[in-house]
Formats: sequence, structure tokens, C-alpha cells
Amino acid sequence: MGALLLDGEEPPLNAVNEGGRSPFVLICEHASQVLPKKLGALGLPETELQRHIAWDIGAEKVSRFLSRLIDAPLMLQRYSRLAYDCNRPPESPDSIPEISELTAIPGNRKLSADDRLARIAEIYRPFHNGISAFLDRRAADGIRSIIVSIHSFTPVYKGKARSVELGILHDRDGTLSSRLIKSFPNVDARLNEPYGPKDGVLHTLNMHGFARGLMHAMIEIRNDLITTERGQDEWAQRLSVPLIQAIAKQGS
Amino acid sequence: MGALLLDGEEPPLNAVNEGGRSPFVLICEHASQVLPKKLGALGLPETELQRHIAWDIGAEKVSRFLSRLIDAPLMLQRYSRLAYDCNRPPESPDSIPEISELTAIPGNRKLSADDRLARIAEIYRPFHNGISAFLDRRAADGIRSIIVSIHSFTPVYKGKARSVELGILHDRDGTLSSRLIKSFPNVDARLNEPYGPKDGVLHTLNMHGFARGLMHAMIEIRNDLITTERGQDEWAQRLSVPLIQAIAKQGS
Repeated sequence: MGALLLDGEEPPLNAVNEGGRSPFVLICEHASQVLPKKLGALGLPETELQRHIAWDIGAEKVSRFLSRLIDAPLMLQRYSRLAYDCNRPPESPDSIPEISELTAIPGNRKLSADDRLARIAEIYRPFHNGISAFLDRRAADGIRSIIVSIHSFTPVYKGKARSVELGILHDRDGTLSSRLIKSFPNVDARLNEPYGPKDGVLHTLNMHGFARGLMHAMIEIRNDLITTERGQDEWAQRLSVPLIQAIAKQGS
Repeated sequence: MGALLLDGEEPPLNAVNEGGRSPFVLICEHASQVLPKKLGALGLPETELQRHIAWDIGAEKVSRFLSRLIDAPLMLQRYSRLAYDCNRPPESPDSIPEISELTAIPGNRKLSADDRLARIAEIYRPFHNGISAFLDRRAADGIRSIIVSIHSFTPVYKGKARSVELGILHDRDGTLSSRLIKSFPNVDARLNEPYGPKDGVLHTLNMHGFARGLMHAMIEIRNDLITTERGQDEWAQRLSVPLIQAIAKQGS
């Protein structure tokens, strides 16, 4: 197509460590604050593009460390959620947000159907089709997959401070989530906080996890804990423990 | 690829009436008893390929009549579920069944990973990716979609007769199903019979309906009621009534 992405721009899916031997398949939909060149800065000042509204601060680094620690494949999305939020279906107004938190996004207003389709067809669809094809190959090979997505959230949202440090989110199937949360007795860790199924944030897990009958969980880390490499490393290590235990219990 | 389908063989998705103006998008995963030429008859006698195990008898015709009556797009799958059951994820043993009902399928036994991947990548994946892309375009155009899949079931299963005539199936979101069933007071119509979510038959609806936040229902008609064109026409007409009413209530 190329109505949006230019020659030389990265494809939306960067699959890291595809041959990793863990059953866990990590997904990080909000890894990047990069915008496709054609979109400029969406009418925003540069400072806004560094904020949580553009990406999940620290989530890519935590995911990469975790991927190495447990030898898991990692599916990274390469564009800012302000271009397209890959954890939302095309039907959702939040997929190409006109307002994010309290910030209006001028470049997302009054889009034509073709503009919307270019975002969907060049970012959202190839990212998810790539994950589907990857999971298909594992299924054909008889390799079990468990889907875990890695996110971060802002410590202050719409002016309110949040005390929760770690959220483990699930929709219908809470098997994995309820195991993981037990591993953090000294952390303010909560199930389905600061977001839950009603906020529409379980899209990726419902598509690649629930619809395929695969165990799944979504991990949300408060981003002030993972702004430095030390914090990213710490949380990757802490998360690796219950993940490895979860497989050991089940048999791998 | 072409590891399975040969030049000149149909693609797995036949999209009928794509421009239809109804919000309903009809899906018929088990429309056909045709096998890809490379698979021969899967080691089965021809009589088995005419039976319910190969396809949903009458379902394509009902779907086509219904598509015309309500001006709805219709997504037809062109290959027998014995090659790949497009209402099952690749992780499910039923996706390429070694036994269907009581019949062993010799050509599905001892498949290599490449054999399995060819079935997945040339039948299942392009069928569903095609539906996804179709729904993506509607979303970009601001057109609402409601997913309805059309199936039929055998009146005698594993030697037992079934009295239920019409099943309306749903998983988590029963909004549409509970409306539809009210329209059949003089029919043996039941919710989540003769199959339900635990039988793994909601795969297509969970992927294209639930994960996208779209209303959805699965319709199962006992196939002795729709073996003739008269019966197919009758059931298409009867089904069109509550579908049209359901939109009228919501506003279209």
C-alpha cells in the first residue's frame, strides 16, 4: 500500500527472539513513541510525544529484559499509539484517539475513511496478522503458547495520583492472573487495576489468547518504577519468577 | 505458497454481496464439502463426504437466501471442515479432525508439522484474515457490523436423535441471541443447544465479534429442515424477521 508508511520505515511488527523456547509469547503493543513520517507530530509539541499518551514508558525495555531472562519470543509494535492503538479494535474511538487523557490530538481529527483505513491496514492489521501467523506456526509445530502482554501506566492520571504499582489484568479467564498476583505480597499489586475489561484494554488478549483457547494475562507496571535501566531490570527479574513457576507447575 | 491448494483451485473465502447495506455480516464456515485436490478423499468413501461430518448440509443455501433477503454481506468458506474446520483455532485437535463423530479420517492421521501448517496457512488463515480486512474497511467507513454465523446440525448424532430444531448460540455476550430466540415460540428453539461455548464452537464469533466489541450470534438449524430448496427458503425467511426487527429496535 504505502499510503501511510514510506519506503525505509520499519514494519509495525518487530518479532524478537522468535525461536525462544519458553511457552510464553510476550507482546508489547505500546513499545514506541515513533510516528510514521507522513503524520509529522500530529500537531503536538515534542514534549507531548515523550509522555505516557504516546507510549508505555519503560515497557519495551522491561519486555526485552524479560524475553532474555525466560527465553521468550517478544512481539514489539514499532509506532506510537497516537498513530494507531494496537490494543484497540478499529471500531473503537480510542483506536485513533482524538483526545488522549486530557490532550487533544489535532492530527487525528476529521480523518477521512481512507486516512483511517491507512492507519488500520498499515499498522494495526499487519501487527496482529504477524502475531497470528507466528502463533499458527507454533500450533502446527505442537508448541504450547501462553500470551502475556506488557504495559506501563502513568502514576498520575487526569490529575489523580495512583498508589497501585502493579496491575495484573484479565477478562474471562483469570487462571494465569490469579497465579501471578500471589507472587507480589509486598507490592501494591491488584487484579484488573488501574484498568479492567470494561475499559476495553483486553483486545489483544481476547483476540490472540481467549479466542484461541490460550492462557493469558496482561501486566501493567506503574511507569515511575521503570524509568531507569535499574528499575526495568528489577521488574523483569521480579516478573520472571512467577512466570517460570507457572510453567513448572503445569509441566512445560 | 501452494503447498496445498493448486493453481485454479478456489481461494478459501468467497465474499458474496460485499456491498450489502445491512449491518449484519453473515459467515458460513462449513458451507462446502469440497476437498483440496491434493488431499484426495482423505481415505474416505464418497458417501462419507456427503454426510454432516464434511459440511453443514443446507447452510450455504440458507445463508445465500438470507443474504439476499436482508441485503447482507456473506462470507462463505469453500473447503470441507475435514480439511480444516475454520470454526476452530489451530491449537484445537478438532481443527484437523482425526475422528469426526464416529468416523476415522485416515488422511488426517500422522500429519507432519508442514502438512498442518499448509492446512492452516492456506485455508484457515486467509479465510479469517479476509473477514478481518472486510470488517476493517467497514469500520474505517463508519459502518456498523453485527456478526451472525449460519450452521446446521445433524438430527442424529452418535446414534441419538435430537428434538431441538433451532439453536441460537452465544458465549459471553447474549444480547442478540436472547432477542432472536423470542421470535420462535412454535419451534423447538433453544439457547446454546445442541452445542455451547464449552464445545469450542464459538471461535469465529469470539474472534470477529467479541474481540472487536461487535454484537454476534450463531445460528444452528437441524439439517433435515433445510435439505430442500423449499425448506432453505422457509428458514431464511423466518430468520430474516427477527434480524430485521433487531436492527429496527436499535436504530440502523
